[in-house]
Amino acid sequence: MRDSYRHKLTEVVDDVLEMTRLVRTAVQRANTALLDADLAAAEAVISGDAVLDSWYDDLDARCLTLLARESPVAGELRTLTATVRMCADLARMGDLAVHVAKIARMRYPASAVPDTVRPNIERLCQIAEDIVGMALSALEQRDEFDARMMAEYHEEADALRAQQFDIILADDWPHGVQAAVDIALLGRYLERIADHAVLIGSRVIYIVTGLYPKGEQWTIA
Amino acid sequence: MRDSYRHKLTEVVDDVLEMTRLVRTAVQRANTALLDADLAAAEAVISGDAVLDSWYDDLDARCLTLLARESPVAGELRTLTATVRMCADLARMGDLAVHVAKIARMRYPASAVPDTVRPNIERLCQIAEDIVGMALSALEQRDEFDARMMAEYHEEADALRAQQFDIILADDWPHGVQAAVDIALLGRYLERIADHAVLIGSRVIYIVTGLYPKGEQWTIA
Repeated sequence: MRDSYRHKLTEVVDDVLEMTRLVRTAVQRANTALLDADLAAAEAVISGDAVLDSWYDDLDARCLTLLARESPVAGELRTLTATVRMCADLARMGDLAVHVAKIARMRYPASAVPDTVRPNIERLCQIAEDIVGMALSALEQRDEFDARMMAEYHEEADALRAQQFDIILADDWPHGVQAAVDIALLGRYLERIADHAVLIGSRVIYIVTGLYPKGEQWTIA
Repeated sequence: MRDSYRHKLTEVVDDVLEMTRLVRTAVQRANTALLDADLAAAEAVISGDAVLDSWYDDLDARCLTLLARESPVAGELRTLTATVRMCADLARMGDLAVHVAKIARMRYPASAVPDTVRPNIERLCQIAEDIVGMALSALEQRDEFDARMMAEYHEEADALRAQQFDIILADDWPHGVQAAVDIALLGRYLERIADHAVLIGSRVIYIVTGLYPKGEQWTIA
């Protein structure tokens, strides 16, 4: 009985890893769609989200079932409760990547990112990808990772978001209302992707140490 | 033992109800802050969110503990798994109300909602409040409620969102980039509040019937 339970728990952990890889691919493709006006990449993200949603439904049900049927304690309890929350974060990241891709698709064949704000958005896309990559490494290695670096990335993402508003609300913004609205929404989606990736990092720390990180970098609602 | 468990489960259900009331108040106050340029209402929402976050952390932990320790089955299992998800939706609604309040506060003493788009935003605020109220009634009565009415409200919210873009991206939009960006973000926040409220409604149907509603009105990622 316990062997079967242990096996199911291992499968859950492996599948969360795989879901994280799928989400990282979605985020990378969304960024490509956006920065390169790549329609195929956009369509791949949009059509691939149904798969991510079913991964989420499946993993969520399996975790809650294991919780209810196996009365796990200690490390396994932490793993399961943290995994339930992680899957929700991963599903939201997939949805946010779709929102990014849809804006890219709407503006095709033009780019949704005007030159004046391109360096900012490029950097925010890179941060989002890097943070997701850090979350994936943390999950793969199941070891305390450099949470401080993740927090620094997140602060930089916040600063880029503030800078976006300075750029689009400046008197000399030449690209019109639609482009400004696109950037306001894109910036929010990319910032939220980074938020969720940082939360996943904190869940990994919790699994490993039993403690959630404290401090202002971590208290993301 | 089982009496204590039954008691804890009842307390969880009562507390989810109370958290839903708190979130409804936050949404109502955020709308007041926005539509009436009411600074005190905005500040109340913003400062009150920490309380909502701690309600969420507490309820989430209690549900997962009951799941792990009591091996619930049937109706109680459904109640607990649905409640875990509901609390996450409620916490997000609180955060979204804060985002609405912060935009209202930023533009004070002016209103963040120009006249040309005011009927639209007023209606979307009302829908958000009404849908949250329907979710609260559904939770209070623990009975199958009129899911179709909730779905119609949600469709109307989607239509209002589309109309917002028509208004702010029109050639004759006279209010400038900042106001357009505000409306784009506000519309998203209010739409997401409605999304989460509909999800809560679907959780209630699941608790009562054991089934999640199907159909395009319900498959919100």
